[in-house]
Amino acid sequence: MAAEAVEEEEVINKQIILKHYVTGFPNESDLQLKTTAIRLKIPADTPNAILVKNLYLSCDPYMRSRMSNLKGSYVESFIVGSPITGYGVSKVVDSTHPDFNKGDFIWGFTVGWEEYSLITDTQSFFKIQHTEIPLSYYTGILGMPGMTAYVGFYEICSPKKGEKVFISAAAGAVGQLVGQFAKLLGCYVVGSAGSSEKVDLLKNKFGFDEAFNYKEEEEDLNAALKRYFPDGIDIYFENVGGKMLEAVLLNMRLHGRIAVCGMISEYNLEKPPGVQNLFNLISKRIRMEGFLVFDYFHLYSKFLEMILPHIKEGKVDYVEDLAQGLENGPAALIGLFSGLNVGKQLVVVSHE
Amino acid sequence: MAAEAVEEEEVINKQIILKHYVTGFPNESDLQLKTTAIRLKIPADTPNAILVKNLYLSCDPYMRSRMSNLKGSYVESFIVGSPITGYGVSKVVDSTHPDFNKGDFIWGFTVGWEEYSLITDTQSFFKIQHTEIPLSYYTGILGMPGMTAYVGFYEICSPKKGEKVFISAAAGAVGQLVGQFAKLLGCYVVGSAGSSEKVDLLKNKFGFDEAFNYKEEEEDLNAALKRYFPDGIDIYFENVGGKMLEAVLLNMRLHGRIAVCGMISEYNLEKPPGVQNLFNLISKRIRMEGFLVFDYFHLYSKFLEMILPHIKEGKVDYVEDLAQGLENGPAALIGLFSGLNVGKQLVVVSHE
Repeated sequence: MAAEAVEEEEVINKQIILKHYVTGFPNESDLQLKTTAIRLKIPADTPNAILVKNLYLSCDPYMRSRMSNLKGSYVESFIVGSPITGYGVSKVVDSTHPDFNKGDFIWGFTVGWEEYSLITDTQSFFKIQHTEIPLSYYTGILGMPGMTAYVGFYEICSPKKGEKVFISAAAGAVGQLVGQFAKLLGCYVVGSAGSSEKVDLLKNKFGFDEAFNYKEEEEDLNAALKRYFPDGIDIYFENVGGKMLEAVLLNMRLHGRIAVCGMISEYNLEKPPGVQNLFNLISKRIRMEGFLVFDYFHLYSKFLEMILPHIKEGKVDYVEDLAQGLENGPAALIGLFSGLNVGKQLVVVSHE
Repeated sequence: MAAEAVEEEEVINKQIILKHYVTGFPNESDLQLKTTAIRLKIPADTPNAILVKNLYLSCDPYMRSRMSNLKGSYVESFIVGSPITGYGVSKVVDSTHPDFNKGDFIWGFTVGWEEYSLITDTQSFFKIQHTEIPLSYYTGILGMPGMTAYVGFYEICSPKKGEKVFISAAAGAVGQLVGQFAKLLGCYVVGSAGSSEKVDLLKNKFGFDEAFNYKEEEEDLNAALKRYFPDGIDIYFENVGGKMLEAVLLNMRLHGRIAVCGMISEYNLEKPPGVQNLFNLISKRIRMEGFLVFDYFHLYSKFLEMILPHIKEGKVDYVEDLAQGLENGPAALIGLFSGLNVGKQLVVVSHE
């Protein structure tokens, strides 16, 4: 009665697995390359599944917390001994799902860090309709970071033309877009980044009005912000937390808004120091709002309508930092936490 | 040609003056009673002025910062050697202003801490229309603290029936009202206060569902909040900052709101410790918004329409802590910062 499974030849399936949970700053050695095998055929009696070849894997700051043994967080811990997972772009090689066909490209959450994945829960994936754009962009400008920039800036910051906008980690996957959105709206835009190369990108590629190197050139962040914002900051797009947030609070204008997207400076600290200057929230009537892009994916098609023409007309640029090959994934991911990446960090598993 | 001033008899005008700017915790000895004299007649050639007899003076937490030598704050420092100033209720004894007549009662900002004041800028004063309510209420429920509770709760917190509300410094001038507003809306309401007497008031007079003594009975604020809010806090009305805010952040629910009204725990610290747990703003998508009542006084008549029937029908209670006599003003004001007051602290200069 049971259908006899067709025997398919197995192929090698390299994976990046988590060796153990991490405290403090992570190392490449917390991750491990493992070679397994997989049959390129969905097992019998597995409806609504897709088997995919993974092309591009996204390195994102939130992944740090998943390397820890979390309880009650908004994301789940990775599973020790299993491939880590995240956003990715993949090609369907087999499908028992009515919405997906062999040869389709998809992006979404979560793809395993491995060459091939069997996906039985497809609800967090989008089928890629616009394949004329580089497919890697679906880990960045057209994927989660792009949506994050869009939602954080337009939905949370309530921006108005002419306002003064500051962005930390401005050369990252999200920051570079927020700055360009703000420029398109007619704002004055300043970004901070951690190297002169990134500062150069911000000013000369992304069209920021000003940018500064917080790591090597500005010991006194308060003084730096006062210099770039003599009249104060209307909008702060927060990616880093800690000392930068403290300095920003001192330099906000009345009725300013802070979109809290990330606090990467704190992710590797077991006990991050507290943030001072919060009284400025009162004296300057500041709205500070955290958000997660997960709540806004219903706006994705609206976002595409806005961003695709900008990309095609060259009004919005996007810089990626590509690590070639799955085996270079661990270094790429860990490098993100000390800012080694220039632009959106991703891992190229295969170009097709 | 010049009009000859009519000689009026001078009367004694006691004042409370600031002796010097203060750092750290203030003392009664930072203030001083001074006896001067005043003529109860507006000087000639002084149009649009009123001379008032001060009845009730309001003791408010924000006054602490005015005792320091501030620069660029949202309020100005008091002037050393001059009477301190604040909100108050006064009776007009002479007027050259077309809108005010002798015998009118007014409330507003700022009245000097003295028996009589000459006011040449009347724009921050309201004429009291409803004199059937105790006039002292215009330093509290019908004055700035009442407006603060109204604006902070309804405009900033976006409250909905059934939501879980936590209020710190809940027995104070503002907190007691926020809790009652939340109960009227059908919320679950818990307050913290610093004595068993205040906790008793919260539960048995103001109708809070629960209340706890953070100073004497709850060493672990996080554990206390988990006990009172097993499913988390939707709305936090922030009056204290510091450790309480840190514990609240751990216990907020998704999409919670924090109205930042005050941070009294920090006002006497030269370098307040930073606040931890801000990452919860992201993971729980929390909106944290500071506000100042000054921005909302255009809503005052709308507020009165709401609150007056509640007072008359006994649906809203208000507890005042009255210090009798201007000479007891310094102790009353300083006592506020260690929570000696039970309810709204004010100073009775004269009942009429």
